[in-house]
Amino acid sequence: MYECSLERMSDKIKTFSKYGDAGHGGITRYALSEADIMARDEFVKRMTAIGATIETDDLANMYATIPGSDPNAKRIMMGSHCDSVKNGGNYDGILGVMSAMEVLETVTAENIPHKHPLTATIFTNEEGSEFPPCMMCSGAMAHDYMPERFRDNFAYDKMMASESIVEPGMTFGKKLSTFKYKGDKANRMSPEKVEALFETHIEQGPILEDAGKDIGVVTCVLGQMLYRVKFYGFAAHAGTFPMKKRHDAFHAAAEALCYLHEEIDKLGYEDLVYTTGEVVIHPDVNTVIPDFFDFSIDVRHEDPEVLNKVREILFSLEKREWQQCKCEVVLGWNRDTVYWNKTLVNYVRDAVEDLGYSHMDIHSGAGHDAQYISYMVPTTMIFAQSEKGLSHCEPEHTSDEICTKAASVMLNAVLKLDENGGL
Amino acid sequence: MYECSLERMSDKIKTFSKYGDAGHGGITRYALSEADIMARDEFVKRMTAIGATIETDDLANMYATIPGSDPNAKRIMMGSHCDSVKNGGNYDGILGVMSAMEVLETVTAENIPHKHPLTATIFTNEEGSEFPPCMMCSGAMAHDYMPERFRDNFAYDKMMASESIVEPGMTFGKKLSTFKYKGDKANRMSPEKVEALFETHIEQGPILEDAGKDIGVVTCVLGQMLYRVKFYGFAAHAGTFPMKKRHDAFHAAAEALCYLHEEIDKLGYEDLVYTTGEVVIHPDVNTVIPDFFDFSIDVRHEDPEVLNKVREILFSLEKREWQQCKCEVVLGWNRDTVYWNKTLVNYVRDAVEDLGYSHMDIHSGAGHDAQYISYMVPTTMIFAQSEKGLSHCEPEHTSDEICTKAASVMLNAVLKLDENGGL
Repeated sequence: MYECSLERMSDKIKTFSKYGDAGHGGITRYALSEADIMARDEFVKRMTAIGATIETDDLANMYATIPGSDPNAKRIMMGSHCDSVKNGGNYDGILGVMSAMEVLETVTAENIPHKHPLTATIFTNEEGSEFPPCMMCSGAMAHDYMPERFRDNFAYDKMMASESIVEPGMTFGKKLSTFKYKGDKANRMSPEKVEALFETHIEQGPILEDAGKDIGVVTCVLGQMLYRVKFYGFAAHAGTFPMKKRHDAFHAAAEALCYLHEEIDKLGYEDLVYTTGEVVIHPDVNTVIPDFFDFSIDVRHEDPEVLNKVREILFSLEKREWQQCKCEVVLGWNRDTVYWNKTLVNYVRDAVEDLGYSHMDIHSGAGHDAQYISYMVPTTMIFAQSEKGLSHCEPEHTSDEICTKAASVMLNAVLKLDENGGL
Repeated sequence: MYECSLERMSDKIKTFSKYGDAGHGGITRYALSEADIMARDEFVKRMTAIGATIETDDLANMYATIPGSDPNAKRIMMGSHCDSVKNGGNYDGILGVMSAMEVLETVTAENIPHKHPLTATIFTNEEGSEFPPCMMCSGAMAHDYMPERFRDNFAYDKMMASESIVEPGMTFGKKLSTFKYKGDKANRMSPEKVEALFETHIEQGPILEDAGKDIGVVTCVLGQMLYRVKFYGFAAHAGTFPMKKRHDAFHAAAEALCYLHEEIDKLGYEDLVYTTGEVVIHPDVNTVIPDFFDFSIDVRHEDPEVLNKVREILFSLEKREWQQCKCEVVLGWNRDTVYWNKTLVNYVRDAVEDLGYSHMDIHSGAGHDAQYISYMVPTTMIFAQSEKGLSHCEPEHTSDEICTKAASVMLNAVLKLDENGGL
């Protein structure tokens, strides 16, 4: 078994945390920003230093490759993204890039024999913070391979036209056209060139910490569905309209929300999560009874049958009136559970067991670049414990030791694939 | 008993409904707009035609006065406002102006003897649609007479600086400075010049219609308090954070809102109204558990003891956690119940009984110009039935017959005051 260097990993964490430093422990590093360029410059500097070849494609995805001993072997890729949300942390995304760099550095420093070329990669604009959608450039590359009903989201023209929600008038295509690391389409990853992808990421939840485990062997990305639950009432004057005659859409929504929690919790699935994070109220005036209220509900679970049970509860809301308001349930979008390649998952589990690190199987509730790439090439993920489960915020933290362990697991899993194949 | 002219009233309703016609039955007639000028031109034209003297003050409040037989008697004033909310109806405010005009026209046409000068008035910017606050210019005139804790809202400088929420960069003072009907401060109404004010208005609620009554004898404007109820939770990722560990501020607010309805309804006061019309949610993203939710609650009742009971229920929310979120209850503002002058209320009740119209005593849940003027001079109000209780919307309607009845009630109440005094 090989282990990565804690010292080298700590130095990378410290260095990358400077690029986009928001001044209170975290970073704001939007895709294609100056801070993004600084992070990519650092990637090029360190990868060039170990003799890696740097390529960039037309979406500014980057690839640093060291050759293997077999001239016919396809690349084994590792990586993630280096952009962040606004006031995000120092680990989400970049840990996957640093781990990939660390694997290449360890292989080079310790002269570890391997047949396949090894590639560390950066996917552009995973967060979609400035230019939606999320996972934009992994989605773009996987476009032709993904199920038809998802394709429209990642049509090339649509992404190029994606408007900045930070800088009015700016599009992703316009900003990309003059970006330092825009390269050739021919350099994009493809199944012809790539054997498999490993993505290391922080968990972004508290499950590993609560179980006292450092490493998660990820088995799938949960299926997810998003609905809007709408209530139609009747506006009237706050001072003159008697309570009994009201059709209060906010009261209706509040009552239905409590009912949803009761009914969904009765199903008894501990690993089911659902979130009502976004609301619309009309007219939103303190002296007017609301005539419209709408909330989002995001539901995630591995088993489509469980999602179906929640769907039934959601649609049951439409069958009655809530505070004399009509209710309508409308699908936003959904996606199926994406299972990682079983052989790769086993290599990861074998690697972490060989290394003797504490670990458990886990699923990913969040979306990741790997989930789109999995439509093109065999893929898997490794999770590193997140302190208190915090993510997408500046206090996000994972110790240098656990980050290094995650890289070591990826290194040994990659070497198992390199040696045994079996995909 | 005298009765006003249905024909003349119908003509006024038809004519004024053209000024600011929004094209589907109602009007948008902001204060100081072109449509406002058209309505005031019509007021001047009709009042000049009966020989009334027109005055305007520095706030563009307008006064049309016909003399009485006693040179030492103070004016008896009648009136309301002629501005509207966006896409408002043809009755809110303007009915009080038209009724005042109708009284003066009837007195003139029928040569009705009276000692006091009679004044029809228009108060500027009651709605505060473009320039907050509501009841701006009646508040400004009553500033020195109102309780100290309300005065700050109606300080002259603050009102002049009130920024347009429709036209960026524009202030009320700037717009007023070039307004056709801006006049002298010396023309403002004052207790030295004015004996009393009568305001006729549509009810804006369904109580009269439900009781089968045409006319409301208004006894008071309800006391009102506005609070914000805030919930502090903890943001986390929708896909990765287990349900049991969540501190969901929206779920907390929904649960507390249902609890409030239960507890307040238990108090059993049928004439208590409370409204939760405005919300703030943070971060308002469908993939993030909300860490903050805040709703307004507007509560109105005549009896301060009832308001106190509701206040106790509100503050009881702070004593426990809601879905592991802390709750904080913060006062926005409050006002006491304003009782109309008892002698004037009796004159109105006597007048409607003499005329034989169906009527009942009623309180006003909405605020009106009269409530600020009542701090300066004795004041009362007359309500006309609102169809379906609709107001602040284009379908707002009161029949020409009921509008004329309301004017007739005001005419006879004014004549009782003119003859008997007694304030």
